[in-house]
Amino acid sequence: MVASPPSLSVAIPDSSLIDSKTLLEKSLRVAQFARAFSIFRVKQVYLYHDISYNAKHDDVKLITTLLEYLNTPQYLRRVLYPKMKQLQYAGMLPPIKSPHHKKFLKTAHVRAGETRMGVLLRHKGSWVVDVGLDQAIPFLGSNQDSRKSNFRLSMSEGKLVAEEIKDANLGPGYWGYNIIQLYSLSELAKRSTTVKFVITSRNGRSISLIRKSLIESLSNTAELVIVFGSPRKGVLETVSKNDVMKFSSPLIINMFPLQGTDTVRLEEAIMGSLAIINSICVSLGDKIAHEFRNFN
Amino acid sequence: MVASPPSLSVAIPDSSLIDSKTLLEKSLRVAQFARAFSIFRVKQVYLYHDISYNAKHDDVKLITTLLEYLNTPQYLRRVLYPKMKQLQYAGMLPPIKSPHHKKFLKTAHVRAGETRMGVLLRHKGSWVVDVGLDQAIPFLGSNQDSRKSNFRLSMSEGKLVAEEIKDANLGPGYWGYNIIQLYSLSELAKRSTTVKFVITSRNGRSISLIRKSLIESLSNTAELVIVFGSPRKGVLETVSKNDVMKFSSPLIINMFPLQGTDTVRLEEAIMGSLAIINSICVSLGDKIAHEFRNFN
Repeated sequence: MVASPPSLSVAIPDSSLIDSKTLLEKSLRVAQFARAFSIFRVKQVYLYHDISYNAKHDDVKLITTLLEYLNTPQYLRRVLYPKMKQLQYAGMLPPIKSPHHKKFLKTAHVRAGETRMGVLLRHKGSWVVDVGLDQAIPFLGSNQDSRKSNFRLSMSEGKLVAEEIKDANLGPGYWGYNIIQLYSLSELAKRSTTVKFVITSRNGRSISLIRKSLIESLSNTAELVIVFGSPRKGVLETVSKNDVMKFSSPLIINMFPLQGTDTVRLEEAIMGSLAIINSICVSLGDKIAHEFRNFN
Repeated sequence: MVASPPSLSVAIPDSSLIDSKTLLEKSLRVAQFARAFSIFRVKQVYLYHDISYNAKHDDVKLITTLLEYLNTPQYLRRVLYPKMKQLQYAGMLPPIKSPHHKKFLKTAHVRAGETRMGVLLRHKGSWVVDVGLDQAIPFLGSNQDSRKSNFRLSMSEGKLVAEEIKDANLGPGYWGYNIIQLYSLSELAKRSTTVKFVITSRNGRSISLIRKSLIESLSNTAELVIVFGSPRKGVLETVSKNDVMKFSSPLIINMFPLQGTDTVRLEEAIMGSLAIINSICVSLGDKIAHEFRNFN
């Protein structure tokens, strides 16, 4: 048994919008991705290059922009996102409401020690952060560029100040996903030996038969990457053979045995596969199991 | 071990569109229901009355009409569906492409013995069926009303004829869902002792902990009904307590343990829950397991 379940990542191709026609259809699909990633606490979203197709630059830009936008707390959106064509339908997309999407607050109501997502800004010669309060908060740290980050609020000489904190120090609880564009998935395989890959494929072994092998393979896995193919082709065609070889013994799994439709759409595959993987992963790890013993 | 896995049904409330604003949003949601039902070979869709809310008649009509429409093969749609307000966005909804959605064929290309969905029509004084061929086919049977049904084609005196077949005689393979409107779910519980209920609820036991009990409870279950609450309230509020009592020891399951968002939307809950249940159910039953041994 492992000490804690692996963190969950997904890899989707840059051709993910290949069969969506209008900006509205594309936006709705990306929103479904964002919702599924957030429900299942996905930490890294790898956007890899589909070798079978030259994805349109506009589509790739739409995927990254809209995923970033939906992952951003409401209070930061006006500062970070000017009027953009890509966000034309953002208003009708379902919100994420993850724990880092906190409410806009009065400074008097914020607790010291609280972490909030914010943006570092230059204001009248000093650096301040906008963390969704009615005032900008003085930034405690060395000179920086303007950017989005996470900040811990604390009291210093009776006043609220903000320090930047690294992702590793965010503590428990889900805090959204990062989007990482990769030319090839083998870059990931090279990075770490504790990364394990699950390739979703209709030609894979049925999830109902491979469940035990999956659980066994998760010991000593820090990061589990679920790899999806494009709306038109399976992973074994969108990723180079060379790439697949570099994954350390990937499991190739059919998540939808006996499917009753000709195809399973990418957004459906993501939602369904993550639901199954989550139901398996949370049973691993004492800490989590304990959390549930208390809950039930 | 049971001889074969139970058939899968779902129960959704008549308030399922309560939080969708426009006809477009409502249509997109119903289409997601239809896709999920079809992917996981759902046979019965029970639309039950949410006791906490008086659903709008228009919404209930939209759910049933659009679900029926999407379940109908392309070739029958023009005959069965006149121009209707409810179908304004039907053209942009993803098709189902289940096995009963066959292609329009020339009569010369059809195989005798084939089953096709069709409609019984009166034509020049006799009964014929439109089963998506370039000719209407003579109907073999007693006088009937015009209606949609399933027909088996055979040769009689060198000509193709059509006989109506009952659902029970459809044979293996998925053949779409039926929609059944119910005032109360207890009507179901009364009908049969081989119906088992799974209630999806955030306050239920984690699927990761209850998996074994679920598998055990499926022996001697002919029909497994997965019950969903409304977009605003859980099943334990949308169904009367009296109803829940009548279910024979229902399992109350949290399908999304440790969810990273404030809520899981109904269409997401359906897709995710059915994916999990399917991954468990297909492992039951020798026949199916054998099918998969051959496949892998």
